[in-house]
Amino acid sequence: MSPKALDYESLNENVKKVQYAVRGELYLRASELQKEGKKIIFTNVGNPHALGQKPLTFPRQVVALCQAPFLLDDPNVGLFFPADAIAKAKHYLSLTSGGLGAYSDSRGLPGVRKEVAEFIERRDGYPSDPELIFLTDGASKGVMQILNTIIRGAGDGVLVPVPQYPLYSAAISLFGGSLVPYYLEETANWGLDINDLRQSVAEARSKGITVRAMVIINPGNPTGQCLSESNLREILRYCYQENLALLGDEVYQQNIYQDERPFVSARKVLMGMGPPISKEVQLVSFHTVSKGYWGECGQRGGYFEMTNIPPKTVDEIYKVASVSLSPNVPAQIFMGLMVNPPKPGDISYEQFVRESKGIIESLRRRARMMTDGFNSCTNVVCNFTEGAMYSFPQIRLPPKAIEAAKRAGKVPDVFYCLKLLEATGISTVPGSGFGQKEGVFHLRTTILPAEEDMPEIMTSFKKFNDEFMEQYEDHRGYSRM
Amino acid sequence: MSPKALDYESLNENVKKVQYAVRGELYLRASELQKEGKKIIFTNVGNPHALGQKPLTFPRQVVALCQAPFLLDDPNVGLFFPADAIAKAKHYLSLTSGGLGAYSDSRGLPGVRKEVAEFIERRDGYPSDPELIFLTDGASKGVMQILNTIIRGAGDGVLVPVPQYPLYSAAISLFGGSLVPYYLEETANWGLDINDLRQSVAEARSKGITVRAMVIINPGNPTGQCLSESNLREILRYCYQENLALLGDEVYQQNIYQDERPFVSARKVLMGMGPPISKEVQLVSFHTVSKGYWGECGQRGGYFEMTNIPPKTVDEIYKVASVSLSPNVPAQIFMGLMVNPPKPGDISYEQFVRESKGIIESLRRRARMMTDGFNSCTNVVCNFTEGAMYSFPQIRLPPKAIEAAKRAGKVPDVFYCLKLLEATGISTVPGSGFGQKEGVFHLRTTILPAEEDMPEIMTSFKKFNDEFMEQYEDHRGYSRM
Repeated sequence: MSPKALDYESLNENVKKVQYAVRGELYLRASELQKEGKKIIFTNVGNPHALGQKPLTFPRQVVALCQAPFLLDDPNVGLFFPADAIAKAKHYLSLTSGGLGAYSDSRGLPGVRKEVAEFIERRDGYPSDPELIFLTDGASKGVMQILNTIIRGAGDGVLVPVPQYPLYSAAISLFGGSLVPYYLEETANWGLDINDLRQSVAEARSKGITVRAMVIINPGNPTGQCLSESNLREILRYCYQENLALLGDEVYQQNIYQDERPFVSARKVLMGMGPPISKEVQLVSFHTVSKGYWGECGQRGGYFEMTNIPPKTVDEIYKVASVSLSPNVPAQIFMGLMVNPPKPGDISYEQFVRESKGIIESLRRRARMMTDGFNSCTNVVCNFTEGAMYSFPQIRLPPKAIEAAKRAGKVPDVFYCLKLLEATGISTVPGSGFGQKEGVFHLRTTILPAEEDMPEIMTSFKKFNDEFMEQYEDHRGYSRM
Repeated sequence: MSPKALDYESLNENVKKVQYAVRGELYLRASELQKEGKKIIFTNVGNPHALGQKPLTFPRQVVALCQAPFLLDDPNVGLFFPADAIAKAKHYLSLTSGGLGAYSDSRGLPGVRKEVAEFIERRDGYPSDPELIFLTDGASKGVMQILNTIIRGAGDGVLVPVPQYPLYSAAISLFGGSLVPYYLEETANWGLDINDLRQSVAEARSKGITVRAMVIINPGNPTGQCLSESNLREILRYCYQENLALLGDEVYQQNIYQDERPFVSARKVLMGMGPPISKEVQLVSFHTVSKGYWGECGQRGGYFEMTNIPPKTVDEIYKVASVSLSPNVPAQIFMGLMVNPPKPGDISYEQFVRESKGIIESLRRRARMMTDGFNSCTNVVCNFTEGAMYSFPQIRLPPKAIEAAKRAGKVPDVFYCLKLLEATGISTVPGSGFGQKEGVFHLRTTILPAEEDMPEIMTSFKKFNDEFMEQYEDHRGYSRM
């Protein structure tokens, strides 16, 4: 009998080609070990609440009230909830047509999209149109929809930074397109060199690929760098010259751990460049409630904003969004609250600021502890995490370790990360899952473990690493290069 | 300059081909009219809370507590929430790793998937494996993922009932496959004739299409029929003979408005058939929190269960699910509560039963009122809504109306539905959005308007329809056929 539709042999090949290391072999092995009773520190995915970060109180009060609107009729509601949370809950319920249980418009609630537009306008100093903002079930879903709209087949290329967040490689595989890598320069703190970019495009074109779009991740994932305004201008000018749509993944815009290079949005830079560039470059920018000091990953809320996208295309994107009816409504309210948080004078303002500052300042300290910890280890070098939630140290594996990995049938960094997991319970993602230059190895870890646990984690890492390096040391001197 | 990546001319053609009438021209026009101040009765989409259905209290209490877990530490929490809601909230929080703000496993929380498996086992009398159950952001997302896994290109066909819910045609277009229609027989209360099915498959094969899967919607959308056990057996035997995977859309399984044909799941029938069929036919079954007496559409919760799907394929489906990280966690808890509701003896049991029975009994009365209302109109005939949430009357348009539609550049049923919308504010979906036999016209309306509004709506419909028929009456007698 011929294979059935859902036998592995006969599945859609694009599905099989998808790789997603963040929840790949390491994660699966970690889950197994956890089941067997081992204590696992999951640093494979930016999932702050899973590592003990407490949710911000105010937005949770508001959404709880929206879920249980009958509480609003209770004369004692004020004993449990502050007046501004009650007022906000009423505000958001008034924006829905039937509360959290009703599908919203497929683009999201118009009232929340208006709040997002006002936030963008305050942030960038240029007006934003709510009709060009779509709310999504997390930023990933938006990225996937836009890539699906662009990619027509294997001849269509999308420029993706390497190392990259594997959502991009996975989605491009799934939609049958071609990933065109451009390399970030580790020795220049993961900076983007426009000449390298040109070379990548030329190479892709020589293979017959039509390069149609470019992805930037700012701040970088897994690399943590913040793009400077001048770098963004170069990128936008390049997109203009080469007729590329730009996808700006800006989900870490609140996660900044230095003062020299604050976050600047691609849209702000684009608008500031003036015509013709500001009128021509097609830009889609992505944001989320999962990151920042919110970390509300499980709620699945995000948005994308479209700039210079023709109305007929917006209609097509709307149509396809409508097939899944609507993004989840509770997360839309989280998004509204994120872009329009308590203001000075509001009852909940001080608590909100205290909680959010506490989280972001602790992340800043943790970024520093982790970088310093990695740099104290044998054969490990690590750029400082300027932004985002990750540390991405280079692991200089000695030749003997690489040989041992080959014998074990593993990619060298997978071999290292598996050993690390077994020895310490620290669940990381091998650098090969993000892409790296040939013969260079990394791992990605989040900076999210609780601050008080950090010294012990870094000690445990150092002990493992230094013993590993000792074990595989090449006495011909390679490992100390 | 050549078109840009996001110019309409250069978009993915599969995106452009997608049609989704439920939120198409009629919905857009209705939204415009609403903005202009006209009162619109949105019956285009099964969105009960938008039409005034109140959410069930108990699940909302539980999820509100999960959103605001600090309430659980408040000694006065018992003043606002019953003890069983508090206990359930603690139960579900214990199943998460970090509350509602943490990504879950990409398949959903293991504890909730276990509750789903227990529900299926109680319902069908056969064991179910939680590892083969994936939670999703609504059933639609699951359907799309499975179709994306199956469809390799335009040569792959999927059998879809006509009339159908346009999710199927839209998803098949988006993934570049071929829809193979099989017609439901209106004069046999929208029954499925296996001989028609054979003919559709033969015809598709003669065009070189590999028919790989079949969709059933039970109870039917938009047609409302319930499939009998013997009909399901025939379908499963046919899938076995023809090597077809079966997709069972069973989202309306709680919405049954007659006693002759209760809901029977495809899985129960399959298991009851014994080997080889029960071991061979690949079945994926879909369910949701959006329908039933829950109607929690805006929460976006669903699941699919896989039967006879090889482990390597399950791994692939897991991998692709992991690219979007996880379904939203609050809706996973709604799913847990739906499959494991309050039991006799629980504090909230009586209220829960009262509320849910109230909803389902009212829907049953509304199904009857609507069918009778339509059948009292000139040139309208309508099968009784055995299940689901829709009424799908046939509108026998006189030739003069068809000519008028042509002159207006509209499909005849779109023409009729637009006139209905302008005259009455009733926003329906033309039958052409679901597919229908050539020259036959329908509309779909939900049975969801509030029961007390129903007489007025049907009166308003009848007035419009009978005047319309009068206006376009063909005095040669066609309209009275």
